[in-house]
Amino acid sequence: MMEKNIFKFCSQIGVRNYEVDWQGIVHNANYLLYFEVGRIEYLKNLKIQIDLKSIQTNSKIVLVRNEINHLMPAKFDETLNIYTRISEIRNSSFVFEGILEEKNSKRIIAENVAYHVWLNPKNNKSKRVSNSFRKIVKEFEKENLKI
Amino acid sequence: MMEKNIFKFCSQIGVRNYEVDWQGIVHNANYLLYFEVGRIEYLKNLKIQIDLKSIQTNSKIVLVRNEINHLMPAKFDETLNIYTRISEIRNSSFVFEGILEEKNSKRIIAENVAYHVWLNPKNNKSKRVSNSFRKIVKEFEKENLKI
Amino acid sequence: MMEKNIFKFCSQIGVRNYEVDWQGIVHNANYLLYFEVGRIEYLKNLKIQIDLKSIQTNSKIVLVRNEINHLMPAKFDETLNIYTRISEIRNSSFVFEGILEEKNSKRIIAENVAYHVWLNPKNNKSKRVSNSFRKIVKEFEKENLKI
Amino acid sequence: MMEKNIFKFCSQIGVRNYEVDWQGIVHNANYLLYFEVGRIEYLKNLKIQIDLKSIQTNSKIVLVRNEINHLMPAKFDETLNIYTRISEIRNSSFVFEGILEEKNSKRIIAENVAYHVWLNPKNNKSKRVSNSFRKIVKEFEKENLKI
Repeated sequence: MMEKNIFKFCSQIGVRNYEVDWQGIVHNANYLLYFEVGRIEYLKNLKIQIDLKSIQTNSKIVLVRNEINHLMPAKFDETLNIYTRISEIRNSSFVFEGILEEKNSKRIIAENVAYHVWLNPKNNKSKRVSNSFRKIVKEFEKENLKI
Repeated sequence: MMEKNIFKFCSQIGVRNYEVDWQGIVHNANYLLYFEVGRIEYLKNLKIQIDLKSIQTNSKIVLVRNEINHLMPAKFDETLNIYTRISEIRNSSFVFEGILEEKNSKRIIAENVAYHVWLNPKNNKSKRVSNSFRKIVKEFEKENLKI
Repeated sequence: MMEKNIFKFCSQIGVRNYEVDWQGIVHNANYLLYFEVGRIEYLKNLKIQIDLKSIQTNSKIVLVRNEINHLMPAKFDETLNIYTRISEIRNSSFVFEGILEEKNSKRIIAENVAYHVWLNPKNNKSKRVSNSFRKIVKEFEKENLKI
Repeated sequence: MMEKNIFKFCSQIGVRNYEVDWQGIVHNANYLLYFEVGRIEYLKNLKIQIDLKSIQTNSKIVLVRNEINHLMPAKFDETLNIYTRISEIRNSSFVFEGILEEKNSKRIIAENVAYHVWLNPKNNKSKRVSNSFRKIVKEFEKENLKI
């Protein structure tokens, strides 16, 4: 189990009715999307540009591995806290961790580890994570960032 | 990398236009759905009932962990082979493995390991995987099934 | 064009990154989902029960016709106002109208008219919209409700 | 009700498990996606280019109005016939019609009318539907095309 208190950033998302499947609970693929929303909000909060143009011209970040543990289902109309942090930056890759928690009951819904690689969009080869990205994340995550 | 030749079952799926995201490639959450389609087709092929009624009254199967490696993106209008197998049955859980491959180029798109637990729907406690399920899967997977 | 000032209820929704398609704009099917979110929020606001149990045992409400006009695309990260009202209650059916507007620019994204029928879940035949539903909606919409 | 026999093109789609909602039937937004799949298949069949590049450089086709009548729900694992035709080409717009039918029972699921406008991608102003598009569609639809 991940430790919630090392996460410095939390965003929220509401479960929408059409995300609930035939077992009366949120379909599992939606949790992946919720974690992705958390990562985008995290990057926005650090003022790291993630719009369409910058992705296609400067550098491209791709998800290469996703691990998700499902602990308890989320239900219709619940509000979920998405705790998000970058736990590690390596040479050309970095790691996002996430915890999904139901807001009122503090029930843990799922945990996620998502591995990303930094690519040169011209040749799709991996390239070093930029110094500006390293600096911004380090300043935010401080001693919790493995680098 | 998983070995394709130990998979005895393969289904197919076509990439639909609305599954393609702003980077021109299939959005990552869709691969999870494709693997799920593969698992459902696998169970149907073994005549294991998966309809709504049986899920709610006899026993409930829940996904507890999903691992996915993204190797190459799939694109609009491609047909994908979904290789699916049950690799292991434990006491109250079992493991699905999957490979997603583009049909023409044989390009590997993604690999998946999905862990499922067998629950008693009345109390949501784990229960032993039924003997009939074990027998059907064993007869199909033979020596490749870890049991 | 619908008149915004006869709508007494407005909810909000944020465009999520995975709802944006290969043309850089929200895929058209998502607008239908946004309007549906607006309708659910509307019913919740009027304390009309819409949970799974009540739908299946007392009466079933089904969507029979959906009309949507697309005026301007919504984009990633925009917040949308969803104006929602019930414009008319007939014998066994009722009509929802909706306007989707970008919060800051007040740009109109889309308009929706959604026709619903009230069914008896035992035989799937239409039945009269209940008096309690009529009363609650009339008290809220007042003279703007055609009845 | 639309007449099935004036449709010259039919494609098929299988209902996927995750498209089924909490009422045990296909969620209404998916029918829109199915009709869209039908339109794409129709255009591909007529060798009309619809890939990403051509959309962005030559001309842009946008959906401006969608009408859908829901007749009977589709269910998990059903195969659906999607009858698709272009019924009318005006100056800068054209109209697609669609019928969604369950393959075995011939049960009509839904009907769709989708209005599209032809835009100049440089200024987003409507432009005349090209002569080559008119010719190709006219040759295929013959006397059923209103022009």
